[in-house]
Amino acid sequence: MSGEASFIEKLRAIATIPAARGLRDDAAVLDVGGTRLVLTHDMLVEGVHFLPSDPPTSVAWKLVAVNLSDLAAKGATPLGALMGYTLRGDAKWDAAFVDGLKVALDRFSIPLLGGDTVSGGERVMGMTLIGQAMDVVPSRGGAREGDGIFVTGVIGDAGAGLDLAQAADVNGNNVLVKAYRMPVPQIDAGLRLAGTVSAMMDVSDGLLLDAARMAEASGLAAMIDLDTVPLSAAYRAARGVERADRLAAATAGDDYQLLFTSNRPLPALPCPVTRIGQMIPGHGVHVHDSQGGVPLPQSLGWLHE
Amino acid sequence: MSGEASFIEKLRAIATIPAARGLRDDAAVLDVGGTRLVLTHDMLVEGVHFLPSDPPTSVAWKLVAVNLSDLAAKGATPLGALMGYTLRGDAKWDAAFVDGLKVALDRFSIPLLGGDTVSGGERVMGMTLIGQAMDVVPSRGGAREGDGIFVTGVIGDAGAGLDLAQAADVNGNNVLVKAYRMPVPQIDAGLRLAGTVSAMMDVSDGLLLDAARMAEASGLAAMIDLDTVPLSAAYRAARGVERADRLAAATAGDDYQLLFTSNRPLPALPCPVTRIGQMIPGHGVHVHDSQGGVPLPQSLGWLHE
Repeated sequence: MSGEASFIEKLRAIATIPAARGLRDDAAVLDVGGTRLVLTHDMLVEGVHFLPSDPPTSVAWKLVAVNLSDLAAKGATPLGALMGYTLRGDAKWDAAFVDGLKVALDRFSIPLLGGDTVSGGERVMGMTLIGQAMDVVPSRGGAREGDGIFVTGVIGDAGAGLDLAQAADVNGNNVLVKAYRMPVPQIDAGLRLAGTVSAMMDVSDGLLLDAARMAEASGLAAMIDLDTVPLSAAYRAARGVERADRLAAATAGDDYQLLFTSNRPLPALPCPVTRIGQMIPGHGVHVHDSQGGVPLPQSLGWLHE
Repeated sequence: MSGEASFIEKLRAIATIPAARGLRDDAAVLDVGGTRLVLTHDMLVEGVHFLPSDPPTSVAWKLVAVNLSDLAAKGATPLGALMGYTLRGDAKWDAAFVDGLKVALDRFSIPLLGGDTVSGGERVMGMTLIGQAMDVVPSRGGAREGDGIFVTGVIGDAGAGLDLAQAADVNGNNVLVKAYRMPVPQIDAGLRLAGTVSAMMDVSDGLLLDAARMAEASGLAAMIDLDTVPLSAAYRAARGVERADRLAAATAGDDYQLLFTSNRPLPALPCPVTRIGQMIPGHGVHVHDSQGGVPLPQSLGWLHE
């Protein structure tokens, strides 16, 4: 077991109340005085979750977006944010970060409530989002045999963008680079889907890895038709549509789309949605395309710590 | 203006809703569906907020305690915690940290709700506590002219303990070292005081500095009788009771006691409480003792980032 896995196992032994959902879900769901609160906390570390060359405004956006995506998966509306931030003495970077933070918080109508600033040797930032959910809060574990598997938006743009962003002469206006730096969480789609889906989560670490997690939580297997995984025109142009290109998209991560299962008619959504497979008995994730079964790559996604 | 001060000023321009209290209070106070929530987020950085030689169990305790102390100042009961944690590949340290986390959370009946683990180059940890307050939530700014100034417990032990903890042959059972490593937040006292006090905050950065902040927020001055600042027997034995010793205690920080003002009879409290001064017109903090006015030291406390 990796250091992170054993650490989280030890935390799970502490996090025993139902609200914590065994630390296996996108967020905690806490009922307080008739209100269903959703709470999530995600961190970004420079060099791990973002590039030193990423603009501070986009890093701030990403900090908000990755947390908001967890609320989206719960069909929750944000009530406020608290931020923890390490200052490294680069006032210009920090000032630009706050500018970006304001843009992101304003865009999604999230009040900044508080937080803490500390001095540190590396850029580490954390954000807690608190949100309010409806009566029904989807989990990862509710998928039923025969349910269709769906995903919002397109998959793989951010992964392709990360490759481009690592180049010396990165073009910040490239649509793929933008998808990596400034993902747009599907908060409105999450709100509309929460009452309909049997299971829902956000795609943060790679479509196949996250589908495997949903399958495991639901005690089923996910069968995915790789040919149906939605790719953008930009991705097709930059990377292609061969099996290897599609697999790369489905294992890259940082998509921040919603992955969900349902056997009911879907509500009208403010974004494209694509059926990519079906829940079947068994376990794990099974991938096929028009040529037949697709051998799974060693890594289904990004097991980032 | 320091980098931190200008950063926080920029954040204040974003944090405009009343719940954020201008980022000038110990915690945010957010009304949701008839419930008054209190939210706080504090971070610890190795080498800044704790010593590399501090036991991981006590670092975990401190992470919980410093956040809980903010809830205490609001008279709030904790509902749950989210933790952000950087893993540096030292599994033994991390395992001991979780053991200490369990002890601290159990001691104060705080459910662990969620959080995030990341890999990082230095030990940085953040905790968000969410609590539930009563109808009346004290602020720092409510003190009135003539109110008495009070403090719970004793002052200065943690500062003296920090000095001892920096020695090579530190004795972990020393009461001063314990006060530094494992402060006990006054959560019960905070609950009982919340409805009575005119202003309240926790003493984290130094009694005089925090008293000056309370005075500023209230538009008054704090007049403090240094001879009345409560010192423990251990502090008196280790450091003495001269003016310089008392000033050192009153500017050391890390006490995590409650500082409050009131002109009403105090409720029964589960801890000692001492009247140390009075709110008067003017601004700043004025200190005297039996010998007369006490010149203020250059630093009233620890302006840690």
